Amino acid sequence: MNLSNQYLEELEYDTFHHLGFTSSNAKESFHDVKFVCVSGSNGRVNTFAHYINDQLKLMKSEDVKNICTTDRFVLYKVGPVLAASHGMGTPSTSILLHELFKLLHYSGASDVTFFRLGTSGGLGFEEGSIVISSQALNGMFKPNFNQVVLGETIEHATGFNEEFISQLVAMAIDLPYDVKTGATMCCDDFYEGQGRLDGAFCSYTKADKKAYLQKAYEAGVRNIEMESTVFSAMCLRAGVKAAVICVVLVDRLIQDQILISKDKYSDIQKRPWEIVLKYIKSRLPLAVNGS
Amino acid sequence: MNLSNQYLEELEYDTFHHLGFTSSNAKESFHDVKFVCVSGSNGRVNTFAHYINDQLKLMKSEDVKNICTTDRFVLYKVGPVLAASHGMGTPSTSILLHELFKLLHYSGASDVTFFRLGTSGGLGFEEGSIVISSQALNGMFKPNFNQVVLGETIEHATGFNEEFISQLVAMAIDLPYDVKTGATMCCDDFYEGQGRLDGAFCSYTKADKKAYLQKAYEAGVRNIEMESTVFSAMCLRAGVKAAVICVVLVDRLIQDQILISKDKYSDIQKRPWEIVLKYIKSRLPLAVNGS
Repeated sequence: MNLSNQYLEELEYDTFHHLGFTSSNAKESFHDVKFVCVSGSNGRVNTFAHYINDQLKLMKSEDVKNICTTDRFVLYKVGPVLAASHGMGTPSTSILLHELFKLLHYSGASDVTFFRLGTSGGLGFEEGSIVISSQALNGMFKPNFNQVVLGETIEHATGFNEEFISQLVAMAIDLPYDVKTGATMCCDDFYEGQGRLDGAFCSYTKADKKAYLQKAYEAGVRNIEMESTVFSAMCLRAGVKAAVICVVLVDRLIQDQILISKDKYSDIQKRPWEIVLKYIKSRLPLAVNGS
Repeated sequence: MNLSNQYLEELEYDTFHHLGFTSSNAKESFHDVKFVCVSGSNGRVNTFAHYINDQLKLMKSEDVKNICTTDRFVLYKVGPVLAASHGMGTPSTSILLHELFKLLHYSGASDVTFFRLGTSGGLGFEEGSIVISSQALNGMFKPNFNQVVLGETIEHATGFNEEFISQLVAMAIDLPYDVKTGATMCCDDFYEGQGRLDGAFCSYTKADKKAYLQKAYEAGVRNIEMESTVFSAMCLRAGVKAAVICVVLVDRLIQDQILISKDKYSDIQKRPWEIVLKYIKSRLPLAVNGS
């Protein structure tokens, strides 16, 4: 991973404020990373790290430990897999990605693939379905991530490698649940930003909401979450391959509230992991031996 | 707290997806809340809840427990004080506030004051100084929070009650560190969004950065964080009194990296708490007996 920020060279060492450690041992500890998997929730990342280790038998279970020393995020390293939480929303996710990109830059890691494994509302897809994003759109259905930098709005393109997405879909063909591609809409709020009627405020009618979600569906949107645009845009800028794989918790064309049981939630949130596991396994000899 | 969303009346009960419980016992458990204190970090909120309880001796220490059943946020109730984490950035904070406002709406709580107690970069203020926000500005120095709703950008005003802010400043006069008012700039990223040179990317020069921070200073900005605009705008919409009190971790006119020791960080992050404690104590007979 090569970053173009010339000012990084002026630092004797770099303090990753939100990961809680510095760049000083990046090369020894992170040069072999090949896969980075990020999700919103700390607990889910912990369970994912143990799942990957159980499946690939890379280290002793008791050595699977959070190496982030702040409580802003969690970070696990399981062989060539780095798993981290990004919290909710694009600002929090951008902080994690800045620090992970810098960490991998200093480490000399090469040919790294990034996955966001998340939860989402579906559009016409029922709970438990999986959406692999073909596009990441903002709330105006544009494939952009807008960022205010030094007082000006900068528009960054989003997008995914079609061949890579097709490869992931093909790998999922024998899984016992729906795995489809579709555009993912990224919103900056869970309630009004996603047209829900059950927020603290609601300045529109049920009919307005229906019309908006219908327009989103017609624009190709099949699920809605809060991180895909910044994840896609930053991975494009860093020149790394990336995919967003989300499970649907509720079909937003039917209802707003998420009413599935904790057991079902805990079960279906693991579905994106099975696809990533297949991909990692397909590349593992490469990952373990270096590329 | 009275919310104007008519659709909430259609729900038999409301599921707070990110707090992990429903509205069913809101009245019994939360009707006496008078103060809501929010911060980014889970750990800081835990320490704050214990601090408030130690100071006010409201309940047994072992009863100070996180009542949020997801790992998205933490939530503590210590007598009339509710303490919650909001993660980093405006989207995450908006989710917490939607759910807290609804909870307090169903509970029938009245005359509730909201505080955000955070960390920030300073402009011309050294580490350890406290800024009580007189304004919450976006990255273009405007007192607005912009939100995309049903595909349109809605501009919400931000602002604070001057008399209340003056009251807090007066209460802080005998504290052994600088407590000042100033405009707070809210950015959607920690690195490029705040003009730092030490992010993974940097598309501007050191001179551009200096010019931007100087312009911010001239616009009255004295500290920079990532939540004040949405916090202020949503509290204004809900009609609740609100203040943002942040400690400065680094003077951004001097450097970007935050290099203070963990002990010093852990010490100075408590400074905003002392001001809130004074305010709560000044209102406590009212809070305990109901208003």
